[in-house]
Amino acid sequence: MSDERKNKAIVDIYGQQFSVVGPESISHMRSVASIVDEKMREISDKNPSLDLNKLAVLTAINVVHDYLKLKEDYEALESLLEEKD
Amino acid sequence: MSDERKNKAIVDIYGQQFSVVGPESISHMRSVASIVDEKMREISDKNPSLDLNKLAVLTAINVVHDYLKLKEDYEALESLLEEKD
Repeated sequence: MSDERKNKAIVDIYGQQFSVVGPESISHMRSVASIVDEKMREISDKNPSLDLNKLAVLTAINVVHDYLKLKEDYEALESLLEEKD
Repeated sequence: MSDERKNKAIVDIYGQQFSVVGPESISHMRSVASIVDEKMREISDKNPSLDLNKLAVLTAINVVHDYLKLKEDYEALESLLEEKD
């Protein structure tokens, strides 16, 4: 994140408070936090015996998986657009 | 993840072993794990005092942020494609 004008938000994720700093709007930071919180709760519902640390890592794994899928879709769309040019 | 043919991989993330199960290829699972591992190490280098759990949550926050940015780019590309149709 850049060192220009920075915003700071205190967000609550899975019962823990985090201080998030960055050039993004506070509402963006809150959306990000709420997605992470929601994903942690989803994964914890399915695996109630997970400790907090494993739960957080599995959440990161899930999000990276979603990211890579979206990246593939993005690249497919890009190729489609190039064909049209 | 679907319940069809499933693969299972044991991956190493930040010194901990995780068992990952899903319909994706094992090489995809390993790529995902290695991205999470790399991000955790990047964030830990910048914030050496973070405990493991906060580090993992901050990693998830970072990835969700990247995901939302890519989603915006994807939607912009989609609109561009619609204009061309």
